[in-house]
Amino acid sequence: MTDETATSPAPSRRSLLAVGGAGLALGAAAAGGAVALTRDGGDDMQPAAESGGAVPFHGAHQAGIATPVQDRLHFAAFDVKTDDREAFVQLLKDWTKAAALMTEGRAVGEGAYGGLAEAPPDDTGEALGLKPSRLTLTIGFGPSLFDTYGKAFGIADARPEALVELPKFPGDNLDKARSGGDLCVQACADDPQVAVHAIRNLARIGFGKVAIRWSQLGFGKTSSTTPDAQTPRNLMGFKDGTRNIAGTETDRLAQHVWADGPSWMAGGSYLVARRIRMNIETWDRTSLQEQEDVFGRDKGEGAPVGKAKERDEPFLKAMKPTAHVRLAHPDANHGATILRRGYSFTDGTDGLGRLDAGLFFLAYMKDVRKGFIPVQRNLATDALNEYIQHVGSAVFAVPPGVRDGKDWWGRGLFERKDG
Amino acid sequence: MTDETATSPAPSRRSLLAVGGAGLALGAAAAGGAVALTRDGGDDMQPAAESGGAVPFHGAHQAGIATPVQDRLHFAAFDVKTDDREAFVQLLKDWTKAAALMTEGRAVGEGAYGGLAEAPPDDTGEALGLKPSRLTLTIGFGPSLFDTYGKAFGIADARPEALVELPKFPGDNLDKARSGGDLCVQACADDPQVAVHAIRNLARIGFGKVAIRWSQLGFGKTSSTTPDAQTPRNLMGFKDGTRNIAGTETDRLAQHVWADGPSWMAGGSYLVARRIRMNIETWDRTSLQEQEDVFGRDKGEGAPVGKAKERDEPFLKAMKPTAHVRLAHPDANHGATILRRGYSFTDGTDGLGRLDAGLFFLAYMKDVRKGFIPVQRNLATDALNEYIQHVGSAVFAVPPGVRDGKDWWGRGLFERKDG
Ligand code: HEM
Ligand code: HEM
Repeated sequence: MTDETATSPAPSRRSLLAVGGAGLALGAAAAGGAVALTRDGGDDMQPAAESGGAVPFHGAHQAGIATPVQDRLHFAAFDVKTDDREAFVQLLKDWTKAAALMTEGRAVGEGAYGGLAEAPPDDTGEALGLKPSRLTLTIGFGPSLFDTYGKAFGIADARPEALVELPKFPGDNLDKARSGGDLCVQACADDPQVAVHAIRNLARIGFGKVAIRWSQLGFGKTSSTTPDAQTPRNLMGFKDGTRNIAGTETDRLAQHVWADGPSWMAGGSYLVARRIRMNIETWDRTSLQEQEDVFGRDKGEGAPVGKAKERDEPFLKAMKPTAHVRLAHPDANHGATILRRGYSFTDGTDGLGRLDAGLFFLAYMKDVRKGFIPVQRNLATDALNEYIQHVGSAVFAVPPGVRDGKDWWGRGLFERKDG
Repeated sequence: MTDETATSPAPSRRSLLAVGGAGLALGAAAAGGAVALTRDGGDDMQPAAESGGAVPFHGAHQAGIATPVQDRLHFAAFDVKTDDREAFVQLLKDWTKAAALMTEGRAVGEGAYGGLAEAPPDDTGEALGLKPSRLTLTIGFGPSLFDTYGKAFGIADARPEALVELPKFPGDNLDKARSGGDLCVQACADDPQVAVHAIRNLARIGFGKVAIRWSQLGFGKTSSTTPDAQTPRNLMGFKDGTRNIAGTETDRLAQHVWADGPSWMAGGSYLVARRIRMNIETWDRTSLQEQEDVFGRDKGEGAPVGKAKERDEPFLKAMKPTAHVRLAHPDANHGATILRRGYSFTDGTDGLGRLDAGLFFLAYMKDVRKGFIPVQRNLATDALNEYIQHVGSAVFAVPPGVRDGKDWWGRGLFERKDG
């Protein structure tokens, strides 16, 4: 598997739509592939972090995992509202088509004003004129999809063993209304309006078949999957994502991120989402020393205790036994390694005037049982726990990539031959 | 008054802080004005829309009104928690100092890691390494500040006549928890992390004296105050802000936006904030024709009914009598004109799975009685009302600009000679 760098030019949604005036039906233009991003090989692609460009939608893996982390997130969990298999499969096909268009910077269907005046437009229009903004759309299937709709959809036997429900961890204070979901779509883009537009239009296409259960907006990435980029800071003021799997590390991705089986999942991954609220006010009254002890890294440079540079190898024994990095490091977890791709959130203030803010933690891994669960278990004694609370939780099986224009999200699951 | 274009170079917060290592106290550097943005004249300044640069904090007017609209918003309304005049005045001075630093892309006080290890850092740190991002911080005083603290603070007689409470408008469905406030700070920046950081650090400095009453994040500007820029689209998919007061239109600003009196308010303005929720799902099922009728403009180009181009002068009589533009236009309101500076918001989903999304409407004007109130009254028959609901409301007196490093927010009010 090679990881080349490729970003398409950045056509604006407006310029694409304006061709031929408002009356033009866009189906033809879209199919014609003036901005053909479809890849012919099965290899993965690393689009450069040019913020206006398009990230290829088709490929061996879904984009949005190894893709260099975009600036903004809109994440939605959906519940299924139909037990009609054909209707659900049609939805997956319709979603796939719309997702491919939107990631190219195009409008859905006949666009926001290209259809009949008597009909609602196919596209809601707020992304007209905006660039593709490296939009990626990544779908996942929750355990409840298999449990609740397994019989109706003929997928009861296909639930992967690696897709387990998470156990209750000490300190969990989960809100059901922000947890779970039969499906999820992760929309990442450098422009939030592009991400919000994508989720909204998918929800709209799904009307009557699926409904949003909860959603989360993330305004600042907290992880980096590009090794030489400036590491972003989380809302505690610390560099976050220093030691992560880079999108270019093909071997480590194969070892820790891409799923092996069941066969419909090969090349996919498993996603754990946790809404982690920070006790910002308490944190802000904590001394610099305590803050640095909590993580085992210094605040300015982000260097591990006793080291000078951010990228220096952490010496775990120099840290407090309760330091977050010491407990989360693969060496403390029999090698367990996950790819973090979280975002900061701020959802206003709660009834007590405290900022409802924190980290929307997203992590991808080969097997939930060997990734998130052992690490989170080991974090039971984490000094950080005094300042955070996990308030939402979900887990999803993220199928492999859509190969080409004929393939669709989840086809491997719904048309599988084996278990 | 001239409106020149000037943007300072964009130093990164990190580079400023790194000078001299973590132990450096930054007070001196800040006062030394290595990046001196202070203006000596009293004229207003139009910083270019270069996204990384700094917008001058000092000037005749507060920045954030005529300033070209930045991409993101964090707006916070505060309640006062002290009746100690000196403490409150000190807060305003401390806020002013911090605001001047943050808008220059610097950290507060001794920074995020420059102080004593035993003390909490002065700055929360999540904006380290980020550019100034055209951050503007704009303060406002609510009617309740004068009513509740007028005696204690010696400002009871100073409440401007133009700062009236808004009447109840038909269709209002206001949530008290998202309305009012003794003070407000509008933070606008091209990077949301910079805006969020600013509000958080002001809230932190205000601990014990003020507390956040409500706050609102806006992810996409819906107005433009730069005449030749691409007009942004709101969540209904329409171009919004086509006919607005441009930040360069000195005469119209003087006529419609900058307050005349009382004398402590000269050069200030009045701000109306309305959280307007959109019934997105209903709107999305509405025909293109109906959508265009509602606004009196077409969806693609944004041209007024019967005209070809967005910037063509609207012919109001060609529009439906209930068209939003027809009813909001100055010609329908005895010339009443406001400067709109609103943002789109999406705050997840409500209990019914509907997107909690809409327009956080912000408008600046010379007099609330002659600006927002008559226009909003005239919108009683607006066809748009079927698709929106006003759910939050607040009004503030926005004092004039901070002149220089010795001046502070609200000094004119607290040290005034006359009424
Ligand atoms: C609000 C909650 C959290 C915050 C603020 C946070 C912050 C951080 C920071 C600042 C670092 C050091 C820099 C880096 O290498 O990225 C780090 C490392 C790490 N965190 Fe977290 N983290 C949080 C929750 C979690 C959770 C829930 C997990 C997984 C269960 C996790 C797993 C890791 C891992 C694996 C590392 C890298 C350790 C290493 O290899 O050195 N973190 N985190
Ligand atoms: C969700 C609520 C609203 C939406 C979606 C909306 C949208 C629009 C749109 C699309 C335009 C036409 C383009 C333009 O000139 O900017 C417009 C114009 C305008 N709107 Fe609104 N608006 C909303 C609420 C309001 C409110 C509450 C007011 C004031 C009370 C207002 C005042 C105006 C004015 C003054 C104009 C310009 C009219 C002209 O001079 O032609 N709008 N609005």
